[in-house]
Amino acid sequence: MDKTSSSSIHEGKPIRCKAALCKKAGEALVIEEIQVDPPQAYEVRIKILCTSLCHTDVTFWKLDWGPLARFPRILGHEAVGVVESIGDHVNGFKQGDVVLPVFHPHCEECRDCKSPKSNWCSRYCDDFFSNTRRYGMDSRFKDSSGEDIYHFLFVSSFTEYTVVDIAHLVKISPEIPVEKAALLSCCVSSGVGAAWKVADVEEGSTVAIFGLGGVGLAVAEGARLRGAARIIGVDLNPDKFEIVGKRFGITDFVNPALSGEKKISQVIKEMTEGGVDHSFECIGLTSLMEEAFNSTRTGSGKTVILGMEKQMLPISLGSHDLLRGRTICGTLFGGLKPKLDIPILVDSYLKRELNLNGFITHELSFEEINKAFDLLVKGETIRCVLWMDK
Amino acid sequence: MDKTSSSSIHEGKPIRCKAALCKKAGEALVIEEIQVDPPQAYEVRIKILCTSLCHTDVTFWKLDWGPLARFPRILGHEAVGVVESIGDHVNGFKQGDVVLPVFHPHCEECRDCKSPKSNWCSRYCDDFFSNTRRYGMDSRFKDSSGEDIYHFLFVSSFTEYTVVDIAHLVKISPEIPVEKAALLSCCVSSGVGAAWKVADVEEGSTVAIFGLGGVGLAVAEGARLRGAARIIGVDLNPDKFEIVGKRFGITDFVNPALSGEKKISQVIKEMTEGGVDHSFECIGLTSLMEEAFNSTRTGSGKTVILGMEKQMLPISLGSHDLLRGRTICGTLFGGLKPKLDIPILVDSYLKRELNLNGFITHELSFEEINKAFDLLVKGETIRCVLWMDK
Repeated sequence: MDKTSSSSIHEGKPIRCKAALCKKAGEALVIEEIQVDPPQAYEVRIKILCTSLCHTDVTFWKLDWGPLARFPRILGHEAVGVVESIGDHVNGFKQGDVVLPVFHPHCEECRDCKSPKSNWCSRYCDDFFSNTRRYGMDSRFKDSSGEDIYHFLFVSSFTEYTVVDIAHLVKISPEIPVEKAALLSCCVSSGVGAAWKVADVEEGSTVAIFGLGGVGLAVAEGARLRGAARIIGVDLNPDKFEIVGKRFGITDFVNPALSGEKKISQVIKEMTEGGVDHSFECIGLTSLMEEAFNSTRTGSGKTVILGMEKQMLPISLGSHDLLRGRTICGTLFGGLKPKLDIPILVDSYLKRELNLNGFITHELSFEEINKAFDLLVKGETIRCVLWMDK
Repeated sequence: MDKTSSSSIHEGKPIRCKAALCKKAGEALVIEEIQVDPPQAYEVRIKILCTSLCHTDVTFWKLDWGPLARFPRILGHEAVGVVESIGDHVNGFKQGDVVLPVFHPHCEECRDCKSPKSNWCSRYCDDFFSNTRRYGMDSRFKDSSGEDIYHFLFVSSFTEYTVVDIAHLVKISPEIPVEKAALLSCCVSSGVGAAWKVADVEEGSTVAIFGLGGVGLAVAEGARLRGAARIIGVDLNPDKFEIVGKRFGITDFVNPALSGEKKISQVIKEMTEGGVDHSFECIGLTSLMEEAFNSTRTGSGKTVILGMEKQMLPISLGSHDLLRGRTICGTLFGGLKPKLDIPILVDSYLKRELNLNGFITHELSFEEINKAFDLLVKGETIRCVLWMDK
């Protein structure tokens, strides 16, 4: 990896490189030359090696209202890169390190980062929705006319170079193939973490997963690693089960379109003699969150919500269903503390335990990014990796 | 205790004794002579030594609609007694044993009783609402004209003698004073268990308790035993804090009537720099369940629902508030498995750890049962013990 071992000729200077700009909601991205300024204090400039697409990119690509709809912007938040240069006060990272930029912060200093109970970095997490950085709203990107380009989720990986705060950066072993590593930047960590750290799925237990996109399949992989006896996938697309789901240990499939008048929760209760031990909602629809909750076993059922409800709607739960010993919780980034837990997942992959290979259904060059969006929107891909140098 | 050491002269025969009958919803109970038949297989007839009043007795005393409103009935479910005689196939109980009848079953044989994850005896718990017993709807009570009297929650302790299924019976050490033991039959076990087994309150944590009746105070006692640093009580009656709450380690008090336009959750968040680690709802109002949920800390807050919502209304939770790492669950009987966990609480009392003394604010004779109802309805008592022989 010669590109990682030499010191950067751009250190302390702006870099001109290619980026895919989202100029208007829902319109094709435009690849243009941009300027990426040097990292400020506590920041690292990284060269993106490859990036993959996530449904959250599509959601924000389409978003045309409210304070989170900002243009022009560089989307992308699931990626792997190599450190090109570092700003002041950066410890733990040096030029050439292989790193994952992560939307979920981990400052390591706040009360919650120091607590084993929480992965909610209270110093920076509340900025997730306001979308400001340590030094305000500015990104380090400028377009050809010198105007600021908005960042996305503190990562912005649809560019050859990006600048990331160290609270959003994890150093990883260079032994893992980079395209596999990229998946740990969001999707796989969120799903595997939910089964591992949040639900603490037990050996021999039963699991239902609502939504078999990348995150849902990663939940299955996490449940499989934990020794779940039965993993029921729920999705409208039967290919999600036949073609990819079985790779991740999904044993049964429920298609809501084929269950007639019967609620999915009823179908699952009948399949499992009273309900599953664990259910996971990976889409972001309150109706499915409620069905996931109702699918669990009285007395001990646990539901984990991973999907983000886009209209901020509330979820309605039967108070007596709750009283009968059920639990429901939500999680961002699978309850993982990125700097501590992602290296554990990397190790698990290197030990041939964690299956990352099955997620990548397509690989394209960065120039083909709009084709990657098409594939994801049509539900034809789990993860499409975009290579920056190919 | 001569009454516990001799064999019963009534063994195998009906017993005539006094009981307080609830003949019509909300009307004063009437003490009459009834007949208590001998125990059938898997049943034990016990002589009640003392019983205490719980809000659930009041709720069902007032209930005048639906399938659960049955008259005449013998209420009461928090008590201590001594075994008078046993039916066939009864192992583990003999004449003279001091026992607690418990509304929450523990068959020890079903899948859930054998699992460490659940206290929801799936063999009998679903009968809680249908209110049937191992052998159907029959109680072992008959009134003076030979008509059946309904039982209540499989216990019916407002009588000198009652017949209880062994799934609802726990043998305890005779060393504990019986009036203290009675509290472990429902209220104290439910509250202490919720803090101990369900919430697993950590040393140094912050706690908010909505409703300072017997169960809420027992949650405080459980949190105190677990080393909580700060316990915030929420109640409309300031006496609950000043007169009794402080005995159980409650450190702060919030009176919703005095918090003006501000929501209780907002007041608690301001008091605790972002919310408590654990909140408990002990009343059964969905609005308070939601406030309890919103009072907890982002990223790690846990809410436990103990209160039973009387109109079966659903609870509405912000899906994003959930997604930000909060957990909510419900529990019956504090997550305790009666036969395993009540003896642990008895030990804790005998070791002078668990404070049971503070709960008993009144002691009356059984004949004064209607006065006890008055005191509880007016909120003037935490626990009123009724002595059968005084």
